[in-house]
Amino acid sequence: MGFKLSSFLATLLFICFINYDTVLSNKFEQDPVTKTMHDFSGFPIQETHLPNSLSLLSVDSQTLQKQIDELSTFSDSPAPSVTRILYSDMDVLARRYVKNLMGLAGLSVREDAVGNIFGRWEGYEPEIGAVATGSHIDAIPYSGKYDGVVGVLGAIEAINVLKRSGFKPKKSLEVIMFTSEEPTRFGISCLGSRLLAGSEELAKALRNTVDNQNTSFFDAASFAGYEKDEEKLSSVFLDKGIYSAFIELHIEQGPILEKEGISIGVVTAIAAPASIKVDFEGNGGHAGAVLMPDRNDAGLAAAELALAVEKHVLESGSVDTVGTIGIMDLHPRAINSIPSKAHLEIDTRDIEESRRNIVIEKIHQSAMAISKKRGVKLSEFQIVNQDPPALSDSSVIKAMELAASELNLTYKKMISRAYHDSLFMARISPMGMIFIPCYKGYSHKPEEFASLDDMANGVKVLASTLAKLSLH
Amino acid sequence: MGFKLSSFLATLLFICFINYDTVLSNKFEQDPVTKTMHDFSGFPIQETHLPNSLSLLSVDSQTLQKQIDELSTFSDSPAPSVTRILYSDMDVLARRYVKNLMGLAGLSVREDAVGNIFGRWEGYEPEIGAVATGSHIDAIPYSGKYDGVVGVLGAIEAINVLKRSGFKPKKSLEVIMFTSEEPTRFGISCLGSRLLAGSEELAKALRNTVDNQNTSFFDAASFAGYEKDEEKLSSVFLDKGIYSAFIELHIEQGPILEKEGISIGVVTAIAAPASIKVDFEGNGGHAGAVLMPDRNDAGLAAAELALAVEKHVLESGSVDTVGTIGIMDLHPRAINSIPSKAHLEIDTRDIEESRRNIVIEKIHQSAMAISKKRGVKLSEFQIVNQDPPALSDSSVIKAMELAASELNLTYKKMISRAYHDSLFMARISPMGMIFIPCYKGYSHKPEEFASLDDMANGVKVLASTLAKLSLH
Repeated sequence: MGFKLSSFLATLLFICFINYDTVLSNKFEQDPVTKTMHDFSGFPIQETHLPNSLSLLSVDSQTLQKQIDELSTFSDSPAPSVTRILYSDMDVLARRYVKNLMGLAGLSVREDAVGNIFGRWEGYEPEIGAVATGSHIDAIPYSGKYDGVVGVLGAIEAINVLKRSGFKPKKSLEVIMFTSEEPTRFGISCLGSRLLAGSEELAKALRNTVDNQNTSFFDAASFAGYEKDEEKLSSVFLDKGIYSAFIELHIEQGPILEKEGISIGVVTAIAAPASIKVDFEGNGGHAGAVLMPDRNDAGLAAAELALAVEKHVLESGSVDTVGTIGIMDLHPRAINSIPSKAHLEIDTRDIEESRRNIVIEKIHQSAMAISKKRGVKLSEFQIVNQDPPALSDSSVIKAMELAASELNLTYKKMISRAYHDSLFMARISPMGMIFIPCYKGYSHKPEEFASLDDMANGVKVLASTLAKLSLH
Repeated sequence: MGFKLSSFLATLLFICFINYDTVLSNKFEQDPVTKTMHDFSGFPIQETHLPNSLSLLSVDSQTLQKQIDELSTFSDSPAPSVTRILYSDMDVLARRYVKNLMGLAGLSVREDAVGNIFGRWEGYEPEIGAVATGSHIDAIPYSGKYDGVVGVLGAIEAINVLKRSGFKPKKSLEVIMFTSEEPTRFGISCLGSRLLAGSEELAKALRNTVDNQNTSFFDAASFAGYEKDEEKLSSVFLDKGIYSAFIELHIEQGPILEKEGISIGVVTAIAAPASIKVDFEGNGGHAGAVLMPDRNDAGLAAAELALAVEKHVLESGSVDTVGTIGIMDLHPRAINSIPSKAHLEIDTRDIEESRRNIVIEKIHQSAMAISKKRGVKLSEFQIVNQDPPALSDSSVIKAMELAASELNLTYKKMISRAYHDSLFMARISPMGMIFIPCYKGYSHKPEEFASLDDMANGVKVLASTLAKLSLH
C-alpha cells in the first residue's frame, strides 16, 4: 500500500508525449501484467525514455471510437443520426452493450430499479465513499453519437487506462450509466440521476406518468426488464456521502473550446434549467367554412407564444439567457382544419436563476394575455421543472485543473449551459465536469463530432482526476 | 312511358306533410310493389288525403342515421371522433359497406383504378348523359361523421326514395363515392374527382407521391385493392358530357342556415381554394448551449409565418378571405433541441380568386423576408394547388330551387366556402350543391351534427332534383 500518487501521475504524464502511431502499433502486444502499487512506487521519471510497457498505458482512442460507432447503430433513425429512446428495443440492446464493456473492463455490474447501471472497481478501502463518473447513452430523435456516450464509454476506457497503468484505487471507482438524461419519452430530463439524488417528488409523479402513446412509465420500465412495482422506486435513492466525488466527461455542446483552441473545459457551474408545458384549446372547425372573426385558433396562440418566449429571453439583456420552443404540436393536424388544440414545450435556462425565473413569469403573463386576446383556453401552464444551478466542488475543480496541467493540456474554467446528470449528482456528492471540444459546438444533431485526440485528452484528464480523488 | 313529372313531384310534395311518427310506424309494412310511371300518371293531388302507400315514399331518416352511425365505427380514432384515411384498413371496410348499400339499393356497382365507386341505376334512355350525385366518406383525423357521408349515404337513400315512389329514370342516375376528398394522406384534396375531371397534371404527380411514412401512392392503392400500375391512371378520366348534371348533398360546415332557420342552401358557387407547403431549415443545436445570437431557429420562422398568414388574410378587408395553418411540424421535435426544420401547410380560400392570389403572393413575400431575417433557408415554398372557383349551373340551380319550393322548404342561395368534389365535377358537367344546416356550423371535429329532419329535407330535395334532371 506504499503507492505514491506522484509516481502514478508521472506515468500518466508520459502519455502526453507518446506518438499515437507508436501506441497503436504496439496495441496488440501482450497485456501488461497488473502491477502492484509497490512496483510503481520507485519508478524513475524520465521523460526522454519511454519504455514499451508504458506506451500501453495510453488511451486506446481508436477502440473508443469503434465502440462509439457500434453503439450508434442501436438507433431508431438511420445513420448518421441517432435516436435512442428510453426503454425501447434499441435502448435495451445499447444497455446490454454497455454492461458487456463494463464486464470486459473487470467491473462488477449492478442495475437499479429504473435501470441506472453501475460498474464498480472495488478500492482497497472500500468502506470510504467511492469516486464515481458517468453520463447517459439515450439520444433524442435524430441527434448525434457523442452526447452522453463519450462520458460513459470514455469512463470505461478511463478505467481501462488506470488498470493498464497498474493503478489500484483506494476509494472504489464507479462508472454510472444514467437512465434517461433526455426528456424525450416521458418529458422528464435526468430521470435516473434525479431519482438517485432522492427526488421523492419525481418518484410520486412517475406513478401517473405516461408517454404520448399512453404507455405508463412502469409498463415501459417492465418492458425493458426493470421494475414495475412503484413501491420499489425509493430503492433507487442514494444516501448523501455514498460518493466522495462525481465527475462527468462530456462534449462541450458549445463552440467555445474549439474556437479558442483549448483542449479541456473545467466546468465550475451548470446553468439552471427550467421547462414548461403549455396547452391552448379553441373550437377548431373547417378551414374554409369558419370565417376569421369566428375563430379561436389554438395554433396561432401557440405561434404567438413561441415568439413571445424569444422576445422575453432577448429582453433579459444577457447572452446567458436562452429559451427554446422545441415542441409545438397542433391538433388535429390537418391542412383544412383550424387547430383546436396546441401543445408547446418550452426550455429556458440561465446561469442566473432569478433572471431565468423572471423570463418564466413573463412567459406565463404572455400565455394568459394571448389566451384572453384570442379567446382560447389556456388549459395548461405547467412548470415541469425549475431546477437551481449547481456549482462544481472546489476540490474536484482543483483535481481536474491539476490533471490537465500535469498532462500539459490547455484548459479553461467554464460554465455548462447544457445541463447534465451532474446537476443532480451535485445534490448528493461533490461534483465536477470535464468538457472536450466538439465540432462547431454542434450537438443534438447528426453532425455532432469530437476528434480522437480531443476524446483521448478528456479520457486522460478523467483517468487522472479519478486516480487523484480515489487516493485523496 | 307516359309518366308526367308533375305527378311524381306531387307525390314528393306530400311527404312534407307527413307526420314522421306515422311514417315510422308504417315502415315495417311490406314494400310497395314497384309502380310503373303509368300507374302514377293520373294520381289525384289531394293534400288532405294521404294513402298508406304514399307514406312509404318518404325518407327513412332513422335508417339513414343508423347507417351514418355504423359507417362512423370504421375509424382509427375512438368515437365520437372519426378518422378514416385513404386506403387504410378502415377505409377499405367503409368502402365495402358503401358498395353493399349500393347493391341493396339495386344499383350496379363499378370501381375505377383509384377507387372512385359508382352505383348506377340505368334509365330508360341510357344513351343520354346520366345525372350523378355523390360525395366522399374519407375523414380527416379526429373529425365528425357527417362531412361527406351525408352526400353518399343520403344519395343512396334518395335513390331508395325514388325507387319506393315507383319513379323510373329517363337519364340514368348514378351515385358516386369519390376517393380521398380530404388531403390527409397524400396532401392532395379531391384526388378522385380531380382525376375524373381529367387532371393529367395530378396523374403525373402521383407517380412520385408518397405519404409521410414514405409509402408510395400506388403501393397504398394496391394495398386497398386498386391499381398499382401508373399507366392505367388515365382510365379514370371521364369525358365531358358523360354526365348531364352532377349534384352534391352536404352539410353546410358553416353556421348560416342554422342561425337563420333555413332548411336548404342552394349553392351558387364554390370558393376558390389554394394550399401551400413551406419548409424552413436552420442549423438546430442544443437548447442550452447555443446562445440566442447564434441561432437560426426554423420553428420561430414558422411561427412568424403563421402569424403573417393571419395578418395578410385580415388585410384583405373581406370576411370572405380565410387562411389557416393546420400543420406546423418541428424537427427533431425535442424540448431541448432548437428546431432545425419546420414544415407548414397553409390553406387559403376566397370566393374571389384574385384577392386570394394576392394573399398567396404576400405569404410568399413574408416567407422570403423571414428566411432572410432569421438566416434560415426557405427550402420549399410550393403552391400545391391553386384552383379557380366553380359556378353552379343555372339549370341545376333552377331544379334545386324548384324542388325546395315544391317541398315547401325554406331555402337560400349561398356560396360554399368549403370546397368539394363538385368543384372538379364542374369541369366536366353542369354542377350544383344542396346544403343542409349543421349544428353551430361545426365540421371537421367530433361535435359535427345534422338533425334527422334536416337530413331528410336534404335527401328529399336531392331526390326531387335528380328526378327532374333525369326526365329533363
